[in-house]
Amino acid sequence: MNLLKPLGDRVLVKVRKEEEKVGGIVLASNAKEKPTSGEVIAVGAGAVDYNGKRMPIDVKVGNVVWYDKYSGTSIKYDGDEYLVIRAGDLLAVED
Amino acid sequence: MNLLKPLGDRVLVKVRKEEEKVGGIVLASNAKEKPTSGEVIAVGAGAVDYNGKRMPIDVKVGNVVWYDKYSGTSIKYDGDEYLVIRAGDLLAVED
Amino acid sequence: MNLLKPLGDRVLVKVRKEEEKVGGIVLASNAKEKPTSGEVIAVGAGAVDYNGKRMPIDVKVGNVVWYDKYSGTSIKYDGDEYLVIRAGDLLAVED
Amino acid sequence: MNLLKPLGDRVLVKVRKEEEKVGGIVLASNAKEKPTSGEVIAVGAGAVDYNGKRMPIDVKVGNVVWYDKYSGTSIKYDGDEYLVIRAGDLLAVED
Amino acid sequence: MNLLKPLGDRVLVKVRKEEEKVGGIVLASNAKEKPTSGEVIAVGAGAVDYNGKRMPIDVKVGNVVWYDKYSGTSIKYDGDEYLVIRAGDLLAVED
Amino acid sequence: MNLLKPLGDRVLVKVRKEEEKVGGIVLASNAKEKPTSGEVIAVGAGAVDYNGKRMPIDVKVGNVVWYDKYSGTSIKYDGDEYLVIRAGDLLAVED
Amino acid sequence: MNLLKPLGDRVLVKVRKEEEKVGGIVLASNAKEKPTSGEVIAVGAGAVDYNGKRMPIDVKVGNVVWYDKYSGTSIKYDGDEYLVIRAGDLLAVED
Repeated sequence: MNLLKPLGDRVLVKVRKEEEKVGGIVLASNAKEKPTSGEVIAVGAGAVDYNGKRMPIDVKVGNVVWYDKYSGTSIKYDGDEYLVIRAGDLLAVED
Repeated sequence: MNLLKPLGDRVLVKVRKEEEKVGGIVLASNAKEKPTSGEVIAVGAGAVDYNGKRMPIDVKVGNVVWYDKYSGTSIKYDGDEYLVIRAGDLLAVED
Repeated sequence: MNLLKPLGDRVLVKVRKEEEKVGGIVLASNAKEKPTSGEVIAVGAGAVDYNGKRMPIDVKVGNVVWYDKYSGTSIKYDGDEYLVIRAGDLLAVED
Repeated sequence: MNLLKPLGDRVLVKVRKEEEKVGGIVLASNAKEKPTSGEVIAVGAGAVDYNGKRMPIDVKVGNVVWYDKYSGTSIKYDGDEYLVIRAGDLLAVED
Repeated sequence: MNLLKPLGDRVLVKVRKEEEKVGGIVLASNAKEKPTSGEVIAVGAGAVDYNGKRMPIDVKVGNVVWYDKYSGTSIKYDGDEYLVIRAGDLLAVED
Repeated sequence: MNLLKPLGDRVLVKVRKEEEKVGGIVLASNAKEKPTSGEVIAVGAGAVDYNGKRMPIDVKVGNVVWYDKYSGTSIKYDGDEYLVIRAGDLLAVED
Repeated sequence: MNLLKPLGDRVLVKVRKEEEKVGGIVLASNAKEKPTSGEVIAVGAGAVDYNGKRMPIDVKVGNVVWYDKYSGTSIKYDGDEYLVIRAGDLLAVED
C-alpha cells in the first residue's frame, strides 16, 4: 500500500491483526482491547522546527512499533487496518 | 473555483463527493460518515515562524489529501463542497 | 468609517449584510446563520514576534475575506455591522 | 488620577460613563451592557520578551480605545470607573 | 518580617488590613470583599528566561501594589496577613 | 535519607511534622490542614533550557522552604514524610 | 527483555512486583495502591530541542527510579510488568 504518504511528523503503520504474541509482549491489553502495535509502512518528511529545519523521525520502514491504543487515525484498505500516527506518539520500537 | 485564496498555512480542498473507492482506501469511515479526502485546489503562502520566515507547505495543487473528518471549515460553491483546512491537520497525501 | 484603527494583528471588516451570492460562494451557512464574509476597512500594525519584529498581515484594505462565524468582536456603526478580528483567524481572501 | 501606574503590558483606562454615541460607534452592546470604551490614562513599561527586551505598546495617554466587555480588572476612584487591561486585549483605537 | 524571601518572580506583600481609602482608590471591591492591595516587603531574584538570564521585576520594597483578589498564596504572621504573588500578576503600583 | 536524588528541577523536602510556630509563620493553614513547609534534603541537577543549558535552582540543602499545600508528590520513609516538588513551585525560603 | 527500545525522551522500567521495602521507602502508597518504582531497562535517544539537538536523559540502565503512579503506559511481558514513561515524569533516582 504505497498509495498513501504520511505528512509532516506522521508515520503510516500497518496494524497487527489479532494479538500476536511476539516474544511474549502484550501492551497492557487483553484480547478484547484494540491491538496496539504494527509495522511501519511509510514515514513523513518530519515536522519543521522553529528555525525552519526538518526534525528527525527515529523509526524507519519495516520497524515494528508500539503505541497507546487511543493515538492516531485509523484507515481501512483492502481489508487491512492502517494507522496514521505522529512519530512523537510512538512509545517504543522492537529491536 | 480560483475565486478563494486560502490564508497563512491553510489549503483549499475540493471534497470528493461520495465515498470513492480509490485503490480501496476507506478512511476509517463507513458510508454514512462524511467523506474525508479531496483534491487540493489552492495553497496559502504559509505561516510565519518565530524568526519571521514563511514555513513550507508539503502539498501542492492537484494532490489528493486525507484528513480527520472534524478538521477545517466547509464551504459550498456551485453545488460542490470545499474545505479550508490547515496544512498541519492533513494526515496523508496520495502518491 | 476611518474612525477605528484595529490594534496589533487585528483587522476591521465591514460585514456583508445579507448572504450575497458572490460567484456562488456560500460559506457553509444557510440563510438564518450569521454571514461570514466582508470587506477589509482597516489593518493593524501587526503583532510583534519573539525578536521584537512586526509580523506581516497578508490582507489589505479593499480585500473581501472569509472567516468562521464565531470569530472576532462585532461593532455596530451607523446601522452597519463591522467585525474586529485577528488576521490569523481569517480563512481565505477572494482573488 | 495619576496615583496608579499600570505594570508590564497593562494600561489604565478611564471608562466612558454611559454609552456615548461617538461618531455612531456602538460596540455591539445595547444600553444595559457594560460600556466597552474609554480614554487611556496611563501606560505600563511593556512586557519583557524572550530576549529580555521591552515590547512596544501601540497606544498612548489620551487615546480612546475599544475592548471586549469581559477584559481587565475594574477599579473605582472618586466615583469614576477605571479599568486595568493588557494592551494585547485592546481591539482598536479611535483615529 | 524579613524571615521569608520570595522565590523566582514572586514578591511578598503585606496586605492592607481593612479597606483603606487611599486617595479614593477602591479596587472594584466593596467592604465584604477581600482587600486587594498592600505594601511590598521583599522581592525575589526574578525568573530565568530562555537564555538563562534573570528577568527584571518592576516593583521594589516599599511600593504599594494592586492585584486581583484571587491571585497568590496568603500567609499569616504575627496576626498580619501577607501574600506571596508573582510579579506578573500585579496590576498596578501607586506612584 | 540520602537514598533518593530528585531529578531535573525537583527538590526533596523533609516536611515539618506538626505546625511548628517558627517566628510566628503560619502558611494560611489551620491545624487540620497539611503543613506546608520543610527542610531541603536534596536538589536535582536542574531542568535543561531550550539551548540545552541547565537552569539554576535557587535553593540549597538545609534551606527551609514554603509551598502550596497541593504541590508535589509525598513520600514516606522511616515514619517521616518527604515531598518531591519542582523548584518553580516553591513560594519562599526562610532567610 | 531487550526486545523493546523506548523512543524519544522515554525510558523502559521494570516495575518492582509487590511493595518492596527498600531502605524504608514507601512512595506515599499503601499495599493496595500500584507500586511506583522500578529498574531502568532501556533508555531512549532523548527528545530533540528547538535547535535540533538531542536533550540529555539523567538516568541510565540499572538505576532504580520513582514516579507518580498515574504516569506512563504499562506493558506486560512474560508475566512481568514494564512501564514506558517519559524521563521528565520521573521524580527521583535511588543513589
